[in-house]
Amino acid sequence: MHVLKGHGTENDFVVLPDLDGAIDLTPSLVRALCDRHAGLGADGVLRVVRSENDPDSKPMAAEAEFFMDYRNADGSVAEMCGNGARVFLQYLIRSRLVTESAAVATRGGIVRARSGTDGDIAVQMGLPLVLADRPVATAAPVSRAALAAVRMPNPHVVVQVDTAELDALDLARPPAVEPPLPDGQNVEFIALVGPRHLRMRVHERGVGETRSCGTGICAAVVAAATDDGSAADGATWRVDVPGGTCRVIWHPDGGVELIGPAVIVAEIDLDEDWLAGADR
Amino acid sequence: MHVLKGHGTENDFVVLPDLDGAIDLTPSLVRALCDRHAGLGADGVLRVVRSENDPDSKPMAAEAEFFMDYRNADGSVAEMCGNGARVFLQYLIRSRLVTESAAVATRGGIVRARSGTDGDIAVQMGLPLVLADRPVATAAPVSRAALAAVRMPNPHVVVQVDTAELDALDLARPPAVEPPLPDGQNVEFIALVGPRHLRMRVHERGVGETRSCGTGICAAVVAAATDDGSAADGATWRVDVPGGTCRVIWHPDGGVELIGPAVIVAEIDLDEDWLAGADR
Repeated sequence: MHVLKGHGTENDFVVLPDLDGAIDLTPSLVRALCDRHAGLGADGVLRVVRSENDPDSKPMAAEAEFFMDYRNADGSVAEMCGNGARVFLQYLIRSRLVTESAAVATRGGIVRARSGTDGDIAVQMGLPLVLADRPVATAAPVSRAALAAVRMPNPHVVVQVDTAELDALDLARPPAVEPPLPDGQNVEFIALVGPRHLRMRVHERGVGETRSCGTGICAAVVAAATDDGSAADGATWRVDVPGGTCRVIWHPDGGVELIGPAVIVAEIDLDEDWLAGADR
Repeated sequence: MHVLKGHGTENDFVVLPDLDGAIDLTPSLVRALCDRHAGLGADGVLRVVRSENDPDSKPMAAEAEFFMDYRNADGSVAEMCGNGARVFLQYLIRSRLVTESAAVATRGGIVRARSGTDGDIAVQMGLPLVLADRPVATAAPVSRAALAAVRMPNPHVVVQVDTAELDALDLARPPAVEPPLPDGQNVEFIALVGPRHLRMRVHERGVGETRSCGTGICAAVVAAATDDGSAADGATWRVDVPGGTCRVIWHPDGGVELIGPAVIVAEIDLDEDWLAGADR
């Protein structure tokens, strides 16, 4: 079995080419691949399938040739992943399956991705929904009403702090959110460090603090731009996360675009004995 | 650049074949390889060199054909690593550089390793030194005089607890040791779960809690066998760590033998662009 390792702002993935849809990607195999000590290690697996060859993507095959079958490290199925979508397109380009852009089928619908002249990749992340509620989030030493709660479409609570507070935050435990969103939330803490320039740390539900979260970066800009009155003005924001830097454009048509790097680290041939032990 | 990923009881390594000693393995390259999000991810790098081709190992070349150039994930040089030595021999066997055993040059001297009929690999770890001092170690909820402090030759403090205490231990922070050993210590907490059968958790200095520590497993058996009066009787002990199971024999000649699994996970070709960015 041949795979690749890649990352987008240090959100890292095992890319599993399976154009024919022939591989039975079991939850146990996903967990074994993503195990950071006994396997390769990653936040998730991106299986690359021709859309016509998987029942989940076949209805989208006329519009999107390739299906990004994304799995979380725990083996569960996920709808979409912005950082993953950049790595996915990088793989398609590297493998000469596309030249510079693609419509990608995901369980969250079709996503458009394009490589720019600077090597970064832009992904159309869809429409945000700013919720009316502003819950109070608490992570020592900060307790504060959120700037906004945003569905991207997964749930985010965005909290503004100053840079000293951002550095001091204890995100070893999930921040308390009152009242919580119905299906939980990622919590993004942001500090404004310049015009349209944020620093951000994020706690992802079920995972912990991570080095980057693509939808969280988008939600942070939506919250900040809603707060300062510049919502959907088409300007470019910069967001620095621990794993690197992304840019976000909230377009006048309401769509949010996430732009950032996508790195392929290595091509990998899994050992057959290891694989036999892993896929149980 | 071609490497492999392997692990011994989930103490994991990047194996870098460099028989001619041609690769300049800089600390920054080691850190990039071992980075668990932006690189491959590992506890350390095992460079495989013919002993005659490296100045550090050349004096040992007549006795040991291959040099295990071990580096910690932070880029620093290390003398020896018991779990690493098993993976090192597994690589030599897989590559048909040896058939079933080898004398391996390390910065801590020459180490003998042999593959057994069950697939496990045995490594001669040398002579332990049981210190006269028995410091008090504290990790909530336990505070207790150590069973023994042992040099293997790196420093260990071994503390006996019961199984409920072992499960409850908070090793997120380094255990307090009073008085500390001069150059710090790894702290092993062990529970006797049967005749010559230990369960163990370990906090490694400068690292944190790990899934396995080869010298720590040896030190644990030396401490337990000294305590029960069976020191160096040549019997086989079993030690369960979070990453798996090893066996230890403390031979009548005083030498300690560590026996355990060694797994090769994958063969890996690093991306040239990634490598160019990493080796700075």
